[in-house]
Amino acid sequence: MSAASAKESEVDVLIIGAGPAGLMCANALAMAGVNVRIVDQRPAKIAAGQADGIQPRTIEVFKSYGIGDRLIREGNQMHMAAFYNPSPSGGIERTDRAPDVSAPSARYPFEITLHQGAIEAIFLDSMKAHGVTVERPIVPTSLELSKSEEELKDPNAHPVKVTLKYLDLPEQQGGSEIVRAKFVLGADGAHSWVRKVLGITLDGEQTDYIWGVVDMVPDTDFPDIRCKCAMHSHNGSCMIIPREGDLIRLYIQLSDRDVVDPTTGRVDKSKMGPEKLMDVAKKSFHPFEINKSGDIDWWTLYIIGQRVATQFSVHERVFIAGDACHTHSPKAGQGMNASMNDTHNLAWKLAHVLRGWADISLLKTYEFERRKYAQDLINFDKKFSRLFSGKPRTEENEDGVSHEEFLEAYQTFGLFSSGIGVHYEPSPITTSKHQACASKLIVGQRAVPHVFICAADARPYDIQDLLPSDTRFKILVFAGNTADQAQAARVKALAEEMAKPDGFLARFGKGEHGKVFDILSISSAPKQATNYTDLPRLFRPHWSKVLLDDMDMYARVGGGGYEVYGIDKEKGAIVVVRPDGYVGTVAPFESLDDVNAYFAAFMKA
Amino acid sequence: MSAASAKESEVDVLIIGAGPAGLMCANALAMAGVNVRIVDQRPAKIAAGQADGIQPRTIEVFKSYGIGDRLIREGNQMHMAAFYNPSPSGGIERTDRAPDVSAPSARYPFEITLHQGAIEAIFLDSMKAHGVTVERPIVPTSLELSKSEEELKDPNAHPVKVTLKYLDLPEQQGGSEIVRAKFVLGADGAHSWVRKVLGITLDGEQTDYIWGVVDMVPDTDFPDIRCKCAMHSHNGSCMIIPREGDLIRLYIQLSDRDVVDPTTGRVDKSKMGPEKLMDVAKKSFHPFEINKSGDIDWWTLYIIGQRVATQFSVHERVFIAGDACHTHSPKAGQGMNASMNDTHNLAWKLAHVLRGWADISLLKTYEFERRKYAQDLINFDKKFSRLFSGKPRTEENEDGVSHEEFLEAYQTFGLFSSGIGVHYEPSPITTSKHQACASKLIVGQRAVPHVFICAADARPYDIQDLLPSDTRFKILVFAGNTADQAQAARVKALAEEMAKPDGFLARFGKGEHGKVFDILSISSAPKQATNYTDLPRLFRPHWSKVLLDDMDMYARVGGGGYEVYGIDKEKGAIVVVRPDGYVGTVAPFESLDDVNAYFAAFMKA
Repeated sequence: MSAASAKESEVDVLIIGAGPAGLMCANALAMAGVNVRIVDQRPAKIAAGQADGIQPRTIEVFKSYGIGDRLIREGNQMHMAAFYNPSPSGGIERTDRAPDVSAPSARYPFEITLHQGAIEAIFLDSMKAHGVTVERPIVPTSLELSKSEEELKDPNAHPVKVTLKYLDLPEQQGGSEIVRAKFVLGADGAHSWVRKVLGITLDGEQTDYIWGVVDMVPDTDFPDIRCKCAMHSHNGSCMIIPREGDLIRLYIQLSDRDVVDPTTGRVDKSKMGPEKLMDVAKKSFHPFEINKSGDIDWWTLYIIGQRVATQFSVHERVFIAGDACHTHSPKAGQGMNASMNDTHNLAWKLAHVLRGWADISLLKTYEFERRKYAQDLINFDKKFSRLFSGKPRTEENEDGVSHEEFLEAYQTFGLFSSGIGVHYEPSPITTSKHQACASKLIVGQRAVPHVFICAADARPYDIQDLLPSDTRFKILVFAGNTADQAQAARVKALAEEMAKPDGFLARFGKGEHGKVFDILSISSAPKQATNYTDLPRLFRPHWSKVLLDDMDMYARVGGGGYEVYGIDKEKGAIVVVRPDGYVGTVAPFESLDDVNAYFAAFMKA
Repeated sequence: MSAASAKESEVDVLIIGAGPAGLMCANALAMAGVNVRIVDQRPAKIAAGQADGIQPRTIEVFKSYGIGDRLIREGNQMHMAAFYNPSPSGGIERTDRAPDVSAPSARYPFEITLHQGAIEAIFLDSMKAHGVTVERPIVPTSLELSKSEEELKDPNAHPVKVTLKYLDLPEQQGGSEIVRAKFVLGADGAHSWVRKVLGITLDGEQTDYIWGVVDMVPDTDFPDIRCKCAMHSHNGSCMIIPREGDLIRLYIQLSDRDVVDPTTGRVDKSKMGPEKLMDVAKKSFHPFEINKSGDIDWWTLYIIGQRVATQFSVHERVFIAGDACHTHSPKAGQGMNASMNDTHNLAWKLAHVLRGWADISLLKTYEFERRKYAQDLINFDKKFSRLFSGKPRTEENEDGVSHEEFLEAYQTFGLFSSGIGVHYEPSPITTSKHQACASKLIVGQRAVPHVFICAADARPYDIQDLLPSDTRFKILVFAGNTADQAQAARVKALAEEMAKPDGFLARFGKGEHGKVFDILSISSAPKQATNYTDLPRLFRPHWSKVLLDDMDMYARVGGGGYEVYGIDKEKGAIVVVRPDGYVGTVAPFESLDDVNAYFAAFMKA
């Protein structure tokens, strides 16, 4: 079959790879109604093993797509970490227990563990409800990017030509297809074909640390088997990750002699199997007993490599995300989280550009924001891996890692490893000129969860639930004390100003500003003194859009939000939250012009 | 076709009527794996209108069947009540706002409103997952109960013969069926055919109060349109019930001249329609405007009747439940709740008798418990209806109902109307001899919700989530301070005593006591000092079964449970929770014999 007669098609976004990064992107775009296809080389979704840890911030992100409740329902929750070290009487003993998550503002103060197949199924079901399924088994065989400057700058052009090969069909039966895409995402893993074909290299190095992983149901007298355990023993380090049901995962540190072929100096996987991994674990657990109950669910070996791709996109038309961009150790539970948050960052930007709402330059912020994050992640991982893979400190080995050193690092890194501390640097979409007017809603960080009550019915809501990932910018008008007449007049004046033809609502609202901007107002007046009808119409497009910073009718939740956010209770402030839940900018009422300028920097009139 | 050749079949439980009472029963039995059929005369499930209010206790019950989250997700929540009365300047004005629910221990401090069809759909989907669907349109045409004493006492006999007629099939095509059932439930509404065929009468009377009901989306400037509003105006009373989405329901008091035919003295429905109802409402709302936006969703008229059936069963082989047993005014939102809680009470008892676990006499407690409740409900309703339908107190009408009087009644009745205050009187399944050892877990009331943490992983759980309606009795061993050696020894001794062959676990456990009894242990020792492995094996059949009365790792929830329950933190207590979530008995460790005696009173060895 000649190339000329191969099936040809067009698509807005083609995603290559249906792991967590690819699926997060496909689901977000499907929910946004974007024309998207996703292909994967595997004939079926995976059933066990692989990555399994979901960080607190990622739970918030799932929730913002309406798929968080299922994740929470199906997964195991890790609330407690336990630390074991060599005991003077031989074997190990518990040194400490601590909270698993050390980010005080985490809405969900725990990690979720669930096998990757179950996590992927959550995306697959959500996508299906929006009409998108993964096409498989399919591999790309060529990718060409137009060299025309004009085409590359035109968001309506299809400058990427990808040839797909259907692995379950012979070529003469139409087993290949040429797809012309506006944008392509390579989410095809650590050995990314897309990365290689683009000629993007990875910076970084491989360590000497070799680890084994085994998933199984244990039979044990170890009392912290349902905690995340960091165990330093003279036999090597070990980590326990409790999983859904009664499963646990063990990360087991191996010595060279266990796995390295002495003649070649390379890792020889045939020297190690799950039974041998269990033998190593048993020695480290002494004096506790650990055996498997039933079969081994999954196992693998890995050597820690810490690398970041030199670039995350070519001309903002082909992107890479997830393991294709960064590889690091799995034990801090970061990999899948970093991957999904890469494409959570990218998806709304693609949607805005494809709809003609934003200038194509918006896409430059993807690499800007996520590559910086990946570098921070690698630096964190280097420190953490060294501490975790190092020998424990004892009287004989004073250079070893002490529990205090390890615990301090664990907690210092907690804000980062929870995902809560992610902070995007200043760019056109994160401008912090007026940070002082909302001093604790940090521009570039995710909007802090807090419970407010709905003015119309006093129902409490976590504000994050009112900031869904629906591609709209959220305009939060912290209206101050609207029970005060002078302030009510300021709020009214602000509404009038905001509604003017040269304001951002009219200029960038595409004739129906509620499609692009979701307006919420939050009054600091007490509930007994407030009607939702007190707010100007612009600030209450629906009765549910007026909130109060007050406790619910039962004094169980709510109140104190202005303080938590560092906003003046009398004067209020305007807060812009990006579609991905990160604070874009904040401004006092008087500086509405700066909000207009914020949107003018990347949106199209 | 002769009767002899009609299709014949056997079933354990036949339910007639697929409204809320019938569906609650069918779902509970389906989940329990009981052989059950349910038939209904309607060709399809209803789509709008009817009952719509779910009380706090009923939400807890839904949650216990694993269907509460969907109810909460789909329904509207009522948190706030507002009270309006005649204004000195004409029209109405707001007198007060108050919490909608006044039961401090309510786990869900709100009412849910959702149309009956959506509530029924929750049951239908759950039942379907357990293989049971509603057969329709089918009506019963005859019901005969065996006169044989022996048969009536034999739980394995099929003493009830019911002829069913398939309304969509002509008789010659097999349009009827003779069903021989072990038990029959008539959940066929206020005009119950089953009740009539059994010759059971209703005690009570009809009032003069005539009300109209209209469901619609309003267009209004009324500021409390999303609250439950009780409005007394000179034009008559009105109640607002906000509903799912933007719907609201109005209950509108009518005067005789609006609806009574002066020549016959009877209600003439043709004199009233939804538009006329809106006209009455508009006058009552003055000076606020209210109009419908779009179509009327549903409307009806009713005259309050307050009646209770003289008996709820015949020989404990045929039962009636729901509206078939009690009718009253809908405005306090009790009808559907009372109905569903009738069969929530009945279902586990049927399952126990059918499995041979309990003596058939257990079924007598259904009428004993639920008829008493229905009578209390009618008494409550009489008082509430009188206050609500009465004229407002003004200077001219000093005999009218004052706001203070109304609010006091509203709050006094709150514990009852929330369903939280339901208290079953002493019987073989509620024995309160040792009430003092758990002074605030009242025998005969539902187990009070409280958050405890799991000892193995510090995950917080509301204990109600560990007390599912799965037909098992829950044995809660409040183990006291297990960090104290003497107490640990007492706990160990209790476990040994409880495991003896003459103990209830062995005598009534059918060879595998975990099928009949679910054991949980709750220690008052602090989490840092406790391993789940500290408890005796009997009290930790699984790692998840050991709880601690301590805060979670983030000090957000938990702790203080022993105090809330009135249990001594050192010595502990044994608490038996019935399969429907009500406290069956409590006892100190020393009185294990009384726990044995409790079960011996109604269970079969």
